[in-house]
Amino acid sequence: MTVLHVIYLLAIAAEAASGALMGMRRRMDLFGLCVVGTVTALGGGSIRDVLLGHYPLGWVAHPEYLLFTVGASVAAALLARRLHRLKTAFLLMDALGLVAFTVIGCNIAATTDAHIAVVVLMGMITGVFGGLLRDLLCNQVPLVLQRDLYATVSLVTGILYVGMLHLDFSANVSTGVSILAGFSLRMIAIYFSLALPVLEADISSFEDGDKQR
Amino acid sequence: MTVLHVIYLLAIAAEAASGALMGMRRRMDLFGLCVVGTVTALGGGSIRDVLLGHYPLGWVAHPEYLLFTVGASVAAALLARRLHRLKTAFLLMDALGLVAFTVIGCNIAATTDAHIAVVVLMGMITGVFGGLLRDLLCNQVPLVLQRDLYATVSLVTGILYVGMLHLDFSANVSTGVSILAGFSLRMIAIYFSLALPVLEADISSFEDGDKQR
Amino acid sequence: MTVLHVIYLLAIAAEAASGALMGMRRRMDLFGLCVVGTVTALGGGSIRDVLLGHYPLGWVAHPEYLLFTVGASVAAALLARRLHRLKTAFLLMDALGLVAFTVIGCNIAATTDAHIAVVVLMGMITGVFGGLLRDLLCNQVPLVLQRDLYATVSLVTGILYVGMLHLDFSANVSTGVSILAGFSLRMIAIYFSLALPVLEADISSFEDGDKQR
Repeated sequence: MTVLHVIYLLAIAAEAASGALMGMRRRMDLFGLCVVGTVTALGGGSIRDVLLGHYPLGWVAHPEYLLFTVGASVAAALLARRLHRLKTAFLLMDALGLVAFTVIGCNIAATTDAHIAVVVLMGMITGVFGGLLRDLLCNQVPLVLQRDLYATVSLVTGILYVGMLHLDFSANVSTGVSILAGFSLRMIAIYFSLALPVLEADISSFEDGDKQR
Repeated sequence: MTVLHVIYLLAIAAEAASGALMGMRRRMDLFGLCVVGTVTALGGGSIRDVLLGHYPLGWVAHPEYLLFTVGASVAAALLARRLHRLKTAFLLMDALGLVAFTVIGCNIAATTDAHIAVVVLMGMITGVFGGLLRDLLCNQVPLVLQRDLYATVSLVTGILYVGMLHLDFSANVSTGVSILAGFSLRMIAIYFSLALPVLEADISSFEDGDKQR
Repeated sequence: MTVLHVIYLLAIAAEAASGALMGMRRRMDLFGLCVVGTVTALGGGSIRDVLLGHYPLGWVAHPEYLLFTVGASVAAALLARRLHRLKTAFLLMDALGLVAFTVIGCNIAATTDAHIAVVVLMGMITGVFGGLLRDLLCNQVPLVLQRDLYATVSLVTGILYVGMLHLDFSANVSTGVSILAGFSLRMIAIYFSLALPVLEADISSFEDGDKQR
């Protein structure tokens, strides 16, 4: 059981909790909360594996992960009234999860013979697409597409990790440095409310044209 | 042509009809109705096969299923004004379909070397995820995540079926008993309006926090 | 570099631009625009390949396509104010893309031993499902399911292409004729605002029934 594995389990729990809480706001029943929690936690890695043709999927080989995500979903639902006191802990775990998912995703993609750019992208998909699926199931425009340095943190982490491996740093050093750097960047982004620019434009006339298609 | 196969074809037709009818409410054109109907009918099994890496997919090997779903979609659209008289028949077929999909899904997952828990889960994905995709395409929070003993019926059916096989009952007996039990449970749930609990909580303060991510 | 390949690159750019522009209307940040643009451009082909189990996916083998879609997304966002003047060019490229995606999709499906109907369907999925994913990410009912002869153009193109190959026309002739015919049909549909019928029905009473499930 490596440190990365422990971080991964924490991350799965944090992501499942975030999914279950969003499901509650949509008045889903217990089953729905568990589905959204599980999809949030394991969806990013599943999409990565399906896109790579990398079988079996993680949770198919290790179904005990499902107990973990279902348990975290139910726990989050039961504790929801009190969870806002745990807001900071939640944000810390979520940030750790984002970064850990990214490194793990890069690792798995690197076991295929994919191009280095695809390896980084697969890390980002692992880190970010679980939350994207959560938002689709909850019928809202994905948050990760709208704000904050969230996906960007994943991208930076992946580039750093893959770059260090490429420069012959050991796996342990590369993992440690990239996780620390990514986590710090995410903390800084939250603290200073950093975000990528949103381009604004009067595109109403184009929109009319687009409706022609 | 086994009894299960006949039930499967009825189920595909019922699911396609439910998709086409929901598409009509979204003012989709004929093509849209057929797409939503087909995705509703075959989407659950397709997701299962993609997650398992089980190729070729059912409708790729047997494209005649597509004629079936397109036909049922068009028929449902044409008969929509009268279908509310057929409401009971529709609910019966849909319940049969849910249960049959589940058993078939378990069967296919069992041909891989997946863990028994994954086999049950794949049965549930086969039974439930078609309707979930239908709701995504129609831009609403998936019904199956929100109400009724619908997914739970699938879960119970799958556990019963896999459990009986595990206890060395024959495939026929296991299929018959689990389909009957699941179907009865679904009928009881509809009749008495049974549902899983929806947890309620004042999580607005957490929601604010969540927006920080 | 064949003519079809050049058309394909133009089509990817046009689709990425359409995704980025729709993302702007949802107030996505730069990263979000690039994701939606890329998914719009490459999503249809990715779904086709995953459904067929055809690995590696195009953009995994050729990650340079990603630069292309990201570049087109950023360019579209920067040029958005002026793009309505380019409306006609955009519609032309989009139509060319729809038709080229279809032919390319049929080609790839034909390399598997899929039934001829599945080959045509995979062409249509390649042509249409990118836009469908775009609309899901932007939280709206997919446009292609609602209006115009858009998917129908893809269907006609695919049937013509596969039919001509089947009748022993050369690949070049089949490609040229089906692209020209499909493109012309799309232009005619835009010019005359042709669309498939939307079936209307008072299905409110059924809707009540459906809510029972």
